[in-house]
Amino acid sequence: MRCGAGIEARQVNELFINIDPIQAGGRLTADAMNAVNAYGDGYSVCDNCRKPHRLDYINKPPVAGFHKDVAKWLNMDDVRTVPGARRGFQAAAQTYINKGDPVLLTTLSHYTEFLAIEEAGGFAREIPANENMMITSDAAAMKIEEVIREFGKVPVLAFIDHVDYQYGNMHDVKAIAKVARQYDIPVVYNGAYTVGILPVDGKDLGVDFVVGSGHKSMASPAPSGILAATRERSAEVFRTTTIEGDVTKRRFGIKEPAMLGCTLMGATLIGMMASFPHVKERVKHFDRELENNRIVLEALLSVNGTKVLSQYPRKHTLTRIDTIASYDKVAESHKKRGFYFSGALEEKGITGVIPGATKVWKFNTYGMTKKQACYLADALIDIARENGLPVNG
Amino acid sequence: MRCGAGIEARQVNELFINIDPIQAGGRLTADAMNAVNAYGDGYSVCDNCRKPHRLDYINKPPVAGFHKDVAKWLNMDDVRTVPGARRGFQAAAQTYINKGDPVLLTTLSHYTEFLAIEEAGGFAREIPANENMMITSDAAAMKIEEVIREFGKVPVLAFIDHVDYQYGNMHDVKAIAKVARQYDIPVVYNGAYTVGILPVDGKDLGVDFVVGSGHKSMASPAPSGILAATRERSAEVFRTTTIEGDVTKRRFGIKEPAMLGCTLMGATLIGMMASFPHVKERVKHFDRELENNRIVLEALLSVNGTKVLSQYPRKHTLTRIDTIASYDKVAESHKKRGFYFSGALEEKGITGVIPGATKVWKFNTYGMTKKQACYLADALIDIARENGLPVNG
Repeated sequence: MRCGAGIEARQVNELFINIDPIQAGGRLTADAMNAVNAYGDGYSVCDNCRKPHRLDYINKPPVAGFHKDVAKWLNMDDVRTVPGARRGFQAAAQTYINKGDPVLLTTLSHYTEFLAIEEAGGFAREIPANENMMITSDAAAMKIEEVIREFGKVPVLAFIDHVDYQYGNMHDVKAIAKVARQYDIPVVYNGAYTVGILPVDGKDLGVDFVVGSGHKSMASPAPSGILAATRERSAEVFRTTTIEGDVTKRRFGIKEPAMLGCTLMGATLIGMMASFPHVKERVKHFDRELENNRIVLEALLSVNGTKVLSQYPRKHTLTRIDTIASYDKVAESHKKRGFYFSGALEEKGITGVIPGATKVWKFNTYGMTKKQACYLADALIDIARENGLPVNG
Repeated sequence: MRCGAGIEARQVNELFINIDPIQAGGRLTADAMNAVNAYGDGYSVCDNCRKPHRLDYINKPPVAGFHKDVAKWLNMDDVRTVPGARRGFQAAAQTYINKGDPVLLTTLSHYTEFLAIEEAGGFAREIPANENMMITSDAAAMKIEEVIREFGKVPVLAFIDHVDYQYGNMHDVKAIAKVARQYDIPVVYNGAYTVGILPVDGKDLGVDFVVGSGHKSMASPAPSGILAATRERSAEVFRTTTIEGDVTKRRFGIKEPAMLGCTLMGATLIGMMASFPHVKERVKHFDRELENNRIVLEALLSVNGTKVLSQYPRKHTLTRIDTIASYDKVAESHKKRGFYFSGALEEKGITGVIPGATKVWKFNTYGMTKKQACYLADALIDIARENGLPVNG
């Protein structure tokens, strides 16, 4: 079936249980699908844009209310939507980083934080994870001191991923932010895997900014996301324009240069808005998601030789696994090599594992039902048994 | 009808002839609607992302081919998608502008060009329009010389709108680019009102970059757009990352910092792709669009006192009109004031004029059928006659 010249209609989430590590939280809700249909056209949310002509002031559809609701929900003071979490990182980077400035992030940080720093001319300095792949506040303090020795100044900004993309480990942002605050370093909380997935309280965490990803974790079309700020930082990152035309003396009202004016004019924004009530509800039930993850992970660990590389017990559904001594043993002699594994999963209606991967790989159980989790667990054990791998219990 | 909690389903383009100046070219094609439905989920186009892990290398759906096709279509060498034309301006601004640098634009430039310059720390210098609201190459040359006197250096970048948002006038970019080239100033062609509307040939124009807007003129969801570059400039604006983690020694492959890595991961990109064959076709028939514009504009001008403020005869369907001596005369004494006009239009099934506006306003006839243009023309004359305004002919 096609949905345009040369474009096959996508049915991944209709036909399969999808355990892709980055796709789980971005699947649209039914409301978002309806809303995207109704507001697909380019400038659809702008029908009733009136003075002062800025996206977050539009009342119909209730864009202004959505901004306020998201801020309240995250316990932050101001919120703007952005075309992806990375554009939130960029706005903070452009605000605080001058050429040559040191910027703090971690050895588990996402590449988009590095690119935001690079684009602003800064130097990236990584807080090292410990042997358990956890970022601690002690390590943060040591790194800050190291940066001061190297640059003669404190880092101008810190990006801290609450749950990192590599292991899905949950780091103690609150303690790290406390250390950063002692040095007056603004902290950007990277909530790409948490905002929309589990409860996030910015003030309690003590962070200056909360960044969330719509297409990763808020059941929204791409590119979408949010940048939330405390009152103090809001005035800095959401500063209004001061540039003036030299001939016309034109100025541009309350447009915000770090946002480049309005951000999400149509389907992406309305998708976030329509999914938001569901997202607010689902974060309250993250315990169910962890239980599903436990069911699947225990099945994997029952296959002799499998190791979990992520923090254990799990605090997030994104999980990194080492199957070198289990599923990969089969790949060594299988005529399909590593592809036997993803192939067998696919035959059982499961997708999202990188084709050919049998050594170290990631999966995400977020959003599945308990029944699906049990089915997936059984399927993983069945594939092990069918290929002669010993299974405990 | 609602399409989510508190969100009224939008039916503007189903129930009305929409002459909103910025919405005309962004209405989705049926193929785009289908594609957005199928690819609404966050990371939908990434199912088959393989090494080197960059958006413009994905073959299924045919993202890579789309990039090549768009470049060829614009007669440019390389193309990337961006979350809106403004993000294309930003990428160029971040690449060429250092703090304090002068940057050229025009007295008719869009505010997002100013914000991109402001965010990069540059000074905006406007080439003045002449008395006919046209930007000429002579004015460009004079302004460059003026900038050299003021700053002791040539502008580092120039933003030139082919068709400006204020009057919809078509400026001689080719001649302006020729002047800029003599000073080695890279030229960003702002095609927000042309790319997807009428044929654009970047090499013939002699520009370094072509920026287009998906949601303004390529029948695509927001935020979307394209940034096209010549081979020479491509290496500059699409440079690959060089930043490195100080602890991990991580590098980030061929990701591009000015793009912040991948740009449009789902619905926005697939919408552009699905509409593209239709967009390629429709630009060949812009003469029909101008004919519809002529029908409507002549009706407006037949109402005594109406003046067209845009270039005339029209070369674009976006048109600025002065009805102070016609429709506004009625508003002076009408109990609904200026709202009588938008109200009367709405009763006749026409929307897109700012409610209350009867003095100077803009409309865009793009995308309507000839029958709709005639209906609109009749409606405008009827409203004049119903309110006692003299009509010629």
